[in-house]
Amino acid sequence: MKVILNGQLVDRNEAKVDIEDRGYQFGDGIYEGFRVYHRKIFTLDEHLQRLFRSAELIDMTIPYTQEELATQLYDLIEANQLDSGMLYLQISRGTQPPRNHVYLSETKAVMMATTLVGPRDPATFEKGITAVTAVDDRWLHCDIKSLNLLGNIMAKNQAAKVGADEAILYRDEDHVTECSHSNVSIVKDGVLITHPADNLILNGITRQTILKLARENDIPVEERVFTVEELKNADEVIVSSIMAEVTPVTAIDGKTIGDGKRGPISAKLEEYFTAEIEKNCGITL
Amino acid sequence: MKVILNGQLVDRNEAKVDIEDRGYQFGDGIYEGFRVYHRKIFTLDEHLQRLFRSAELIDMTIPYTQEELATQLYDLIEANQLDSGMLYLQISRGTQPPRNHVYLSETKAVMMATTLVGPRDPATFEKGITAVTAVDDRWLHCDIKSLNLLGNIMAKNQAAKVGADEAILYRDEDHVTECSHSNVSIVKDGVLITHPADNLILNGITRQTILKLARENDIPVEERVFTVEELKNADEVIVSSIMAEVTPVTAIDGKTIGDGKRGPISAKLEEYFTAEIEKNCGITL
Repeated sequence: MKVILNGQLVDRNEAKVDIEDRGYQFGDGIYEGFRVYHRKIFTLDEHLQRLFRSAELIDMTIPYTQEELATQLYDLIEANQLDSGMLYLQISRGTQPPRNHVYLSETKAVMMATTLVGPRDPATFEKGITAVTAVDDRWLHCDIKSLNLLGNIMAKNQAAKVGADEAILYRDEDHVTECSHSNVSIVKDGVLITHPADNLILNGITRQTILKLARENDIPVEERVFTVEELKNADEVIVSSIMAEVTPVTAIDGKTIGDGKRGPISAKLEEYFTAEIEKNCGITL
Repeated sequence: MKVILNGQLVDRNEAKVDIEDRGYQFGDGIYEGFRVYHRKIFTLDEHLQRLFRSAELIDMTIPYTQEELATQLYDLIEANQLDSGMLYLQISRGTQPPRNHVYLSETKAVMMATTLVGPRDPATFEKGITAVTAVDDRWLHCDIKSLNLLGNIMAKNQAAKVGADEAILYRDEDHVTECSHSNVSIVKDGVLITHPADNLILNGITRQTILKLARENDIPVEERVFTVEELKNADEVIVSSIMAEVTPVTAIDGKTIGDGKRGPISAKLEEYFTAEIEKNCGITL
């Protein structure tokens, strides 16, 4: 298997970074995950734009253009013959010993990318997943897709330890924000409700696609804060991410959501989403 | 120069880690900085105890005993002939591809340690430093000495960009917590005031030593929240860390603190601190 390290295809086992890489010592870097369907990267431009936005927000310069990164990602798909799965792209601020909180503008960013085989999982899109609620104790810049993910890690493991698939986070006592590695929306009386795209959530590309599809298909959308109580009493709960697409949550903290089965809005949105993938990627799923 | 990687002394330039080390992708790990004076590690046990506490708080197992780590650190001092400076010790949760938020208990932690030459700087302890105030937007587990330091980085660089030495952080509008890589205390009417050791600050070993010395020498201590206004109107402001020891802050956001010179409590505490180093390390500075 190949990976990309600083713009070059290298063997997986040779891909190492310095122990004083700022990504390793401070989590000083950013990343993106890209969904690949039949060798095509879905919503590639949107992800790359967000990567550059994350870089700007942490005052970091990416030493490649969007076009160069796109070319490298497609080279990696080709090298690993990846049909369906994900690409992970990470850029740290680089190595600048000795360790110092102050970063220097001349420090050269370190870029790496890997592939992960992962076919679509329509059975799960239909069957749904379970979740627990967990306190959102993360920092106040969750809109930056940074390498500071320990809060997300701890929440996800809190879910895993009780056999649940995802952790739905809330802060300020009961305001639901997002999940440990996905966004969350609820459906109540036919309205799709999700947290506004502010500093408290990562504005998921899948989230944005779903909202666009809902609006195009006359499903009313509200971007507003909702509570844990609203979450648990929703008609439908949906998590979205590049791998989850539109996945219903059928139980939260052991409480059944709706009738415990995928609801009509979740089903419709996944149908629209599938069509959107085919259109955007020019493929047949 | 040598470093330690997974318990072994290796050449600095050969010390690399895997691109999928969880420290690199999630900041999933912890660290400690240790002050070395004339080849002796100051408050070694306290730092090692805190390291194990940090590990416990993120549900991570350190594959060494405190004694083994202490031996390795002294081996590194010897290998690099470090007289005075610091040791940096980091332990990540290790490599467990493919990337997954869920950690596995069998994943073997990756440990590394480096040295940094740094003599004491009594001129700065006397002259003091300048600081700016900055919003504390970090997560709610600042008591864990974790690798999620992007908030600290951004604050420190906010200070550096205007030529200041440190960033003093505040949250909830005006509650001062700590600095980007040190603790902060104020002196008002002879009382030493500092933020309680809760989840919002790293309970610095230097901070603890200073509080102990103050109490032993009849300087009244209050561990309580104080405001930005109290900070700027304090008689003295002190930052403390393993390298800063007891360093006065003479100006904050351009406003002179006290008369702009080191105050009497700062001077006394640094004197006590120097004696404590000599006693603890069995050396003469």
